[in-house]
Amino acid sequence: MQDTHISLAHGNGGRLMRELITQLFAKHLQHPTLNTQLDATTLPWSASHLVITTDGFIVKPLEFAGGNIGSLAVHGTVNDLAVAGAKPLYLTLNVFIEEGLEIATLERVIISMAQAAQQAGVSIVAGDTKVVQRGEGGGLYLATTGVGVKIAPQTLDFSSIQAGDIILVSGAVGNHGIAVMLAREQFGLRGDLQSDSANVFPLTHALLPLTGLRFMRDPTRGGLATVAHEISQATGKTVILEQGNIPIHDAVQVVCDMLGYDPLYLACEGRVVAVVAKEQAEQALASWRALAQGEQAAIIGQVATGDARVILRTPLGGERLLEELEDDPLPRIC
Amino acid sequence: MQDTHISLAHGNGGRLMRELITQLFAKHLQHPTLNTQLDATTLPWSASHLVITTDGFIVKPLEFAGGNIGSLAVHGTVNDLAVAGAKPLYLTLNVFIEEGLEIATLERVIISMAQAAQQAGVSIVAGDTKVVQRGEGGGLYLATTGVGVKIAPQTLDFSSIQAGDIILVSGAVGNHGIAVMLAREQFGLRGDLQSDSANVFPLTHALLPLTGLRFMRDPTRGGLATVAHEISQATGKTVILEQGNIPIHDAVQVVCDMLGYDPLYLACEGRVVAVVAKEQAEQALASWRALAQGEQAAIIGQVATGDARVILRTPLGGERLLEELEDDPLPRIC
Repeated sequence: MQDTHISLAHGNGGRLMRELITQLFAKHLQHPTLNTQLDATTLPWSASHLVITTDGFIVKPLEFAGGNIGSLAVHGTVNDLAVAGAKPLYLTLNVFIEEGLEIATLERVIISMAQAAQQAGVSIVAGDTKVVQRGEGGGLYLATTGVGVKIAPQTLDFSSIQAGDIILVSGAVGNHGIAVMLAREQFGLRGDLQSDSANVFPLTHALLPLTGLRFMRDPTRGGLATVAHEISQATGKTVILEQGNIPIHDAVQVVCDMLGYDPLYLACEGRVVAVVAKEQAEQALASWRALAQGEQAAIIGQVATGDARVILRTPLGGERLLEELEDDPLPRIC
Repeated sequence: MQDTHISLAHGNGGRLMRELITQLFAKHLQHPTLNTQLDATTLPWSASHLVITTDGFIVKPLEFAGGNIGSLAVHGTVNDLAVAGAKPLYLTLNVFIEEGLEIATLERVIISMAQAAQQAGVSIVAGDTKVVQRGEGGGLYLATTGVGVKIAPQTLDFSSIQAGDIILVSGAVGNHGIAVMLAREQFGLRGDLQSDSANVFPLTHALLPLTGLRFMRDPTRGGLATVAHEISQATGKTVILEQGNIPIHDAVQVVCDMLGYDPLYLACEGRVVAVVAKEQAEQALASWRALAQGEQAAIIGQVATGDARVILRTPLGGERLLEELEDDPLPRIC
C-alpha cells in the first residue's frame, strides 16, 4: 500500500477502500471461500445444527505482551464456541478503524489474526471495514462472529450442574488482565508477563469423553469470580472456591498486591473453568494436565447445596463471601 | 432500568451489565433460542450449505427520517444475504456504546431493530456489548452478522454476466444518503424526505423464477455508480447507464443540485440493482412493479462489449465517463 496512515477515504466504498481490502485484509486472510467481491459467502454445511457466537474487542492498547487485538479477536470467539462444546469452523470479521491509524499497526494486527485463525483451524469467510473520524474510535475496534458445529454429546448448560459437582480451572488466572495493564505503562511498571490469550479448543475437546462433564466457560471479563457468580445465580446453589488451590503466577500476584487488585476478578483469555461430576474430577484433571496448555490445571472448588452465593475458603480455613463485580478494576482488557 | 445514561460499568461483565442485557436487549430482542446466559447459541439447520455476511454501522446521527442505526443494521445485513440469493434466517449483534449515551436513545434503537428483524423474519440469536470511554465511539456503533440459506437456483456472480444483459434498479436512488444528510442539519436544510432503508428480500425473491437472472447487489456505500463500476471491473466489460431512465425523486435531485452532489454516488439502503438476460428484462421489470416496493423500478442500462468502464448516456444523446468514487461526498451514512 502506498499510504502509511488510514484516511476516511479508506472507508468510503471506492478505490482506496478496495485497495485496503485486497492489499491488506485479503492478502493475509485469504481463503478459497473468501470472495471479497461478493456481499455474502456460501459455505458447505453437513450438520443438523450450527453453533453461533459473537464478540466485540476494544482492548487498549492494541498490542500487549503475548498478543494483540487481532489474535484476541480470534481466540475470544473461538473460545466461546469451544466452551459450548462446539468445534469452531468459520469466523466473520468487522473492523472499525480510526482515521490516522498507522497502516503498519493494522497490518501487524491482521497478521496476528491470520496466524491465530490458522492455528485454531478456522477460516475467516466474510468481513466489513468502516473508518471513523480522528478522535473517535480509539484506534481500532474489532468484532468477530464464530460459527461451529456441536461435537459434545453432553448438554452443557447451567441446568446440568448438580450439588456435589467439582470445579476445575485449566491454568493460572489473571495473566491477560495484568499483561494488558502493564502494556499501558500508566504505573511505570514493566515485566515480561505474557497474556494467556490462546485457543482453548484442545482443552475443551479433552473433556468431551467424560459423561459427567456438566458445563464449561472461559473466565474473561470479570474473571474467575464472575464465572463462580454466574454458576451460583443460574443454579441457585452455593459455589465454594478453595483459595489455596487456585493457580496464580507469582508475577501476577505481586502486581495485584502492589496495586490492590484481586486476581480472581481479572480476565483470562486462554483458560477454561469446567464443572464435572465428582467421580470424574480426577480424570478431568489428568486429561488437562496431559496437555502443555493444562499443566497447571487444578481442582479449585465445588458446587454445594445452600443459597446462591460464592464462598472463598482461605488456606487457614477461614471463609469469606466473594462479592459480585461492581466497579471494573481494569476496563478495556478485551 | 434505574440509570438514564450508559456508564463504563455497563460494560464490565458485572451486575450493571447483566441488568442492561436483561432489561433492554433481551426484553426487546427476546427469542426462544437467545439464551443470554450462554456463550454460544445452538440453532437447527437442515440445508447442505449456509450463506453468511457481516456489516458494521457508524451512521451519524443515530436517528434520521425513516429509520435509525438499529433498523439500518438489520436491513443492511439482511439485504446482503437477499442479493446473494439467500433467505435470511439469523442475525448476531455487536454493540459498541459510548459512555454517556442516553439509555432512552439506546432503547429506541433496539426497538427499531426488533421491529425490523420481525418484519424481515429473522431472529437475533447472539449478541455482545462493549462500552468505551466518553469521547470515543461516536455514541453507538453496531455490527451485525447474518446467516441464511441459499434459495436461488442460479449462480449469482459477476462471472454469470454476459454482454447484452440488461441492468435494472428497483426504485429511486439516493434517498437514504440525503435523509441522513438532512438529519445532520449542518446545512440548515429540512425536509420530509425519508430514507429508503428496508428489507429487500421481497424484491430479490420476486426475481428468482427467472433463469436469466445473473447478479444482484444493493447499492449502498458509493451508490449506483459504484455498483456499475464493480460490474464493469469484475467482468472487464463496458456498463452503459441511461441517465434519463434512472429514477430519482425530485426532493433528492433538488438537494443534490443545491449542494453539488451526484445522486448516482449516494447510498440506498432498500434498493436492488439486478442484471438480467435481455429476453427476460421486461418480465423482471413487471415482477418488481407488481410489488409496492418496486413500483418505480426501471430498466436503466446494459452490459456491452468493450473496455472496463462505465458510460452515462444523457437524455440528449451525449455520453460521459462515470468515474470511480474517490472522495466520499457523504461519509458516515451507514
